[in-house]
Amino acid sequence: MSDLVTEARDLDARDPLAVHRDAFVPAPGVSAYLDGNSLGRPLRSLPDRLAAFVRDDWGTRLIRSWDEQWMDLPTALGDRIGQVAIGAAEGQTVVADSTTVLLYKLMRAAVDARPGRNEIVIEQGNFPTDRFVAEGIAAERGLTLRWISPDPVAGVQVGDIANAMNERTALVVLSHVDYRSGALADMRAITDAAHEAGALILWDLCHSVGVIPIDLDACGVDLAVGCTYKYLNGGPGSPAFAYVNARHHGVLRQPIQGWMGAADVFAMASEYAPAGGIRQFISGTPPVLGMLAMQGMLDLIEEATIAAVREKSKTLTDLVMRAVDIELAPLGVRLLSPRDAAQRGGHVTIGHADFGEVTKRLWTDGVIPDFRFPDGIRLGLSPLSTSHAEALSGVLAVRDLLRA
Amino acid sequence: MSDLVTEARDLDARDPLAVHRDAFVPAPGVSAYLDGNSLGRPLRSLPDRLAAFVRDDWGTRLIRSWDEQWMDLPTALGDRIGQVAIGAAEGQTVVADSTTVLLYKLMRAAVDARPGRNEIVIEQGNFPTDRFVAEGIAAERGLTLRWISPDPVAGVQVGDIANAMNERTALVVLSHVDYRSGALADMRAITDAAHEAGALILWDLCHSVGVIPIDLDACGVDLAVGCTYKYLNGGPGSPAFAYVNARHHGVLRQPIQGWMGAADVFAMASEYAPAGGIRQFISGTPPVLGMLAMQGMLDLIEEATIAAVREKSKTLTDLVMRAVDIELAPLGVRLLSPRDAAQRGGHVTIGHADFGEVTKRLWTDGVIPDFRFPDGIRLGLSPLSTSHAEALSGVLAVRDLLRA
Repeated sequence: MSDLVTEARDLDARDPLAVHRDAFVPAPGVSAYLDGNSLGRPLRSLPDRLAAFVRDDWGTRLIRSWDEQWMDLPTALGDRIGQVAIGAAEGQTVVADSTTVLLYKLMRAAVDARPGRNEIVIEQGNFPTDRFVAEGIAAERGLTLRWISPDPVAGVQVGDIANAMNERTALVVLSHVDYRSGALADMRAITDAAHEAGALILWDLCHSVGVIPIDLDACGVDLAVGCTYKYLNGGPGSPAFAYVNARHHGVLRQPIQGWMGAADVFAMASEYAPAGGIRQFISGTPPVLGMLAMQGMLDLIEEATIAAVREKSKTLTDLVMRAVDIELAPLGVRLLSPRDAAQRGGHVTIGHADFGEVTKRLWTDGVIPDFRFPDGIRLGLSPLSTSHAEALSGVLAVRDLLRA
Repeated sequence: MSDLVTEARDLDARDPLAVHRDAFVPAPGVSAYLDGNSLGRPLRSLPDRLAAFVRDDWGTRLIRSWDEQWMDLPTALGDRIGQVAIGAAEGQTVVADSTTVLLYKLMRAAVDARPGRNEIVIEQGNFPTDRFVAEGIAAERGLTLRWISPDPVAGVQVGDIANAMNERTALVVLSHVDYRSGALADMRAITDAAHEAGALILWDLCHSVGVIPIDLDACGVDLAVGCTYKYLNGGPGSPAFAYVNARHHGVLRQPIQGWMGAADVFAMASEYAPAGGIRQFISGTPPVLGMLAMQGMLDLIEEATIAAVREKSKTLTDLVMRAVDIELAPLGVRLLSPRDAAQRGGHVTIGHADFGEVTKRLWTDGVIPDFRFPDGIRLGLSPLSTSHAEALSGVLAVRDLLRA
């Protein structure tokens, strides 16, 4: 048996979180699921939760459930995410819409509040939806996008930001963990740099929430958006969350004025008056069904602790990185993620010209990573549902296909 | 036994749709559910559908389901709604976001496409979210809202619209069925009037879709939005749908530029290029879980036929109206809906100063209508899940409380 296999076995034997793997729905025919950073796996408890919801909350309490629980669900669940995953005190986080729509609302709110400033600093390698939303807003509001181009593996550094800032900067939009390289940005230092220049900052937490401890309040972050279907296992297309620091409440105002964000929802007032606090950032009727699955995962993360999740994330990605060095580098595979675990999130990306074809074969064989155009494979390792042996077997499957 | 009770029993005995009532989840303790126009009841088949989804589509196929089915779900389900409920040929309807967010996207797309025109015609009694969204857009785009005030019971007439139109009108925004009175607008005549003045029209179908036959294509409608948790029983906060007539594809452009509405979703392109057709109106990741429940209801409506649903809706609302005349009018209750079944949708609204208190008691007693500020009770009668006896019992419960 190779040293790597022995190492993976030892790591799993010592893994305090190994017990939780059984909490997830089994996937017959899948030997390695390495895409928990795109779509987290469902919990075994979910079908019963959904059945009870259909029978009781929806089917029996019917419309009464809006008064009894659902009206408060977007903010109650937001507070829960704040407590378990992002370090946000109560009343600053809300679950609503998609990541894209929330990015639009928060970016608009931010730039509309800074009429004397006309630039948005954004990274060229940021996730497409972040860039596309910013591009649209810049066009409609007459703003300029100031693109920065950090090292694609190391990711954005505080110097990249400091150099791009000036007295015209209204807003900085960055991803906490890069969706390609997995590079982890220094949230505190970069937030400070943005504030020093008088700008607001919006962090996209899609690839860090639920796998890395985040402390938005302590970092003084202005705005954040994150998705809930990756490491929060909310299910395909589950609604995103938005964080707006309390100091901006009543000042920033989002543009999609809906009845659910109005001061008195059922007054059916003749003019829109925004609700106080974070509630103003809601537009339409909350997507209740999509908010159910993530609740079980938040409980599980709380039980396991986010610190322990992060520790396992490091041992998983460290193991994968060594396996890439030993087994894949000799076959011409490039490592596209930072080597230092402290500087990366929960996934490792590798590159090879044949990876488009390799990924097709892997998927057929029940080894499921993510392919990223043009030639990247992302190995996403969700700590609560992934074993070290499983992660390693994915790398070895890549090796076997490249050899064949 | 009163004549009304006998009549209700006879109507139920002859009701060809009565057999379908058993398809819905029972609600112990609820003797009359009269709020299907706010939140339709779940189907009995739903828990099994959800469990299979969690086990197979999500839990086992995992990320592969995006390629296998979910990427096309917003348009496939949109086409299904088009076919069963709104008379839209393929490729013009998409399921996404909330009603509010879709209203924002479509109103923005419409007014941004008519730079020479600067007025939106909208009704003062339109649903708050429609008015609030229009108010926000008018403020940000420098437009004027031209308010019309139709008779609150009869609802908007073609004359109201014709009088408000001029060469500055960019867009007319109306509800097909009024959320308070239930008044049904003449979609064809009003759409023609809008077009005659060179304006576009956006119909809000929230209170008509699934209970009234709609023929958007035949009426030449430009834009429509509707919700799916009322008569389509999609569950609390299930995503809305948008219809954009094919003649506007490639011309109208919505402002929330997201990766899922881009021409090549996974190219991760450096600049946003909108997808062709209706797909461009998608912004973020489709809310898959919220799209499951409505599928069973669409099948049921297709089986029952929307024409039969409409016929039963008329006998239900006619019966309620006679019961209001006989039992409630002598107690000072006002009828706030059109008398002619051809001129109203699926609900009947009545008014009385004590209805705030009455509704609280009704809810406790398991009779569940909707209260509308300041003193209205809406009796929403979803034809597939409501019997004539149930509808009548709701009216009689109101009478008993008013007498007590």
